Amino acid sequence: MQAIFWKHNQLHILDQRRLPKKRIYIPCRSHQQVAKAIQDMVVRGAPLIGCTAAYGMLLAAWETKTKSHTSSLKFIKQAANKLKSARPTALALSYAVNRMLTRAETAPPSEKGSDSILQALKSEADILFQEDLQANRKMADWGATLLPNAATVITYCNTGALATSGIGTALGVIRKAFHLGKIKKVYACETRPYLQGSRLTLWELMVENIPSILITDNMAAHLMKTEKIDAVLTGADRIAANGDTANKIGTYALAIQARHHEIPFYVVAPTPTIDLHISSGEEIPIEERSPAEVTQIGSQHIAPQRAQARHPAFDVTPHKLITALITEKGILQPPDSTSIAKLNGLK
Amino acid sequence: MQAIFWKHNQLHILDQRRLPKKRIYIPCRSHQQVAKAIQDMVVRGAPLIGCTAAYGMLLAAWETKTKSHTSSLKFIKQAANKLKSARPTALALSYAVNRMLTRAETAPPSEKGSDSILQALKSEADILFQEDLQANRKMADWGATLLPNAATVITYCNTGALATSGIGTALGVIRKAFHLGKIKKVYACETRPYLQGSRLTLWELMVENIPSILITDNMAAHLMKTEKIDAVLTGADRIAANGDTANKIGTYALAIQARHHEIPFYVVAPTPTIDLHISSGEEIPIEERSPAEVTQIGSQHIAPQRAQARHPAFDVTPHKLITALITEKGILQPPDSTSIAKLNGLK
Repeated sequence: MQAIFWKHNQLHILDQRRLPKKRIYIPCRSHQQVAKAIQDMVVRGAPLIGCTAAYGMLLAAWETKTKSHTSSLKFIKQAANKLKSARPTALALSYAVNRMLTRAETAPPSEKGSDSILQALKSEADILFQEDLQANRKMADWGATLLPNAATVITYCNTGALATSGIGTALGVIRKAFHLGKIKKVYACETRPYLQGSRLTLWELMVENIPSILITDNMAAHLMKTEKIDAVLTGADRIAANGDTANKIGTYALAIQARHHEIPFYVVAPTPTIDLHISSGEEIPIEERSPAEVTQIGSQHIAPQRAQARHPAFDVTPHKLITALITEKGILQPPDSTSIAKLNGLK
Repeated sequence: MQAIFWKHNQLHILDQRRLPKKRIYIPCRSHQQVAKAIQDMVVRGAPLIGCTAAYGMLLAAWETKTKSHTSSLKFIKQAANKLKSARPTALALSYAVNRMLTRAETAPPSEKGSDSILQALKSEADILFQEDLQANRKMADWGATLLPNAATVITYCNTGALATSGIGTALGVIRKAFHLGKIKKVYACETRPYLQGSRLTLWELMVENIPSILITDNMAAHLMKTEKIDAVLTGADRIAANGDTANKIGTYALAIQARHHEIPFYVVAPTPTIDLHISSGEEIPIEERSPAEVTQIGSQHIAPQRAQARHPAFDVTPHKLITALITEKGILQPPDSTSIAKLNGLK
């Protein structure tokens, strides 16, 4: 099952809000539709948001293809801003859009319309998709080496095939380790309020027959105390230059609990997640989403009418709580300003 | 709104599973009905479970009132076992049932039937109810002294009028502090899987116009880091002789997070919660409830079909993570074997 695919000059996006009950693809014909799909969480997961936005840029090129090269570039620049503002926290989004924009700007002017931009953007979107796919495989290879045999692990949110273009980040590591015979059991946190864990991660794990058990987020500490937990693995939406990591709300709590129990806490994320312009986690913008996503589950109201609620969608885990950062270029253990600067030198 | 009341020789129990949407009382005519209501969480909250079971014992006396004194005592003993086994973790349950049983056993034999047992048990059930009510008030008085002015606090599960016979334990402290003008804001954790926080606590707070904000359980750590949180307040289901405290699943995670941020973590519970027969938290029985309560919210399935889930209903917070235990007899700061033994001497 592909989370997104390009066909007949349309981007088809699997509506993740309806999973696991229904599998419905939403066809997008414009970059506005793509921006809305990202904003409304039809599609989520930092690397996948990046890939989706790249194809959103390609759609913008289609929308303007009969216009002149100059007019098209102007339109594509506006589309880039629209797409980048859809969600503020995941760096993969602006990374992908900026690469697409640069590619458009460096495309040679065409004789008629903006054909060369279109060709360039189709190529670049496919490259971004393939790069993420390759990064998934490499992170999985690196990450699997860190897990012991017969490992019991805890994972958070969804970091699998529904969050990336390939096998996933943290879930990719778990998949790889499972195929190497190293996974005994995976505890998947349900991940309130959006329930990416119960709806998406558990489903991905069950499809592959990986032994998996759903828990509510508040059970993790109890399991860390009463069972042998070998590692906690999560993804990331944005990583500051010092290793501080923004990820789905609840990740920070899990990191504190892992540290309290001396359990390794691994962040698995490709290098486009690292924001070298931001020196620490305090500068990462945290998206505040609608309180209705907390007071309702689907269409069901779970709180009294007129109840007030907060909904920060992400939190920041200080790098000191992270045992290692697993990237496609290698393992940073620990992640800090020095190891990240060194990694960057490898680019 | 009364969570339980006795009328026309029936115990009427407010069905808390339907709150806040519907207010339905279930009339119970037998101790079996009461045991089932406790087991099915129609009624919950440790002190209230105790009071409810006391009236369940009174119903048993009604059921057997035409029988001889000896036959009645035998029947009541069986009823006691039935009621005590309804839920394993809350000590208030066996405390109340045992007190009722002792009272039945020490009632003088009647000339006809078991009238004296009936009278004795009616009196004892009312005494237990009144004792809990008084304990609530005293804990609130003690607890409110610990909070600073303009306090922002986090609370967990429901520990209010729907969990006790009076104003509540932790929520009683918050109520009292609010009426003293000391509460700026209360964050109520939703408390998965049963959502006692969103369904019950928020409702109680809103009824009294106490400024309250609902959060998912995994948001607490983020708030502790990004805002000034003055205290975390929770109740307890059973406290070991060394102060280790069993409470609703998720309490332990919250205690670890509070310690990480150097925020006071207060447990508010009446002395019948303290189990002197148990030396540490490791011996407290933890109820494992149905996984369906995790994979479904109400009638809505949130996980794939055939998903496996865990549902430990409680966890144990080691006494070293508890800043103070607030009882009706005073504040134990810190709670440990010494302070608890001393408190017991005051009995």
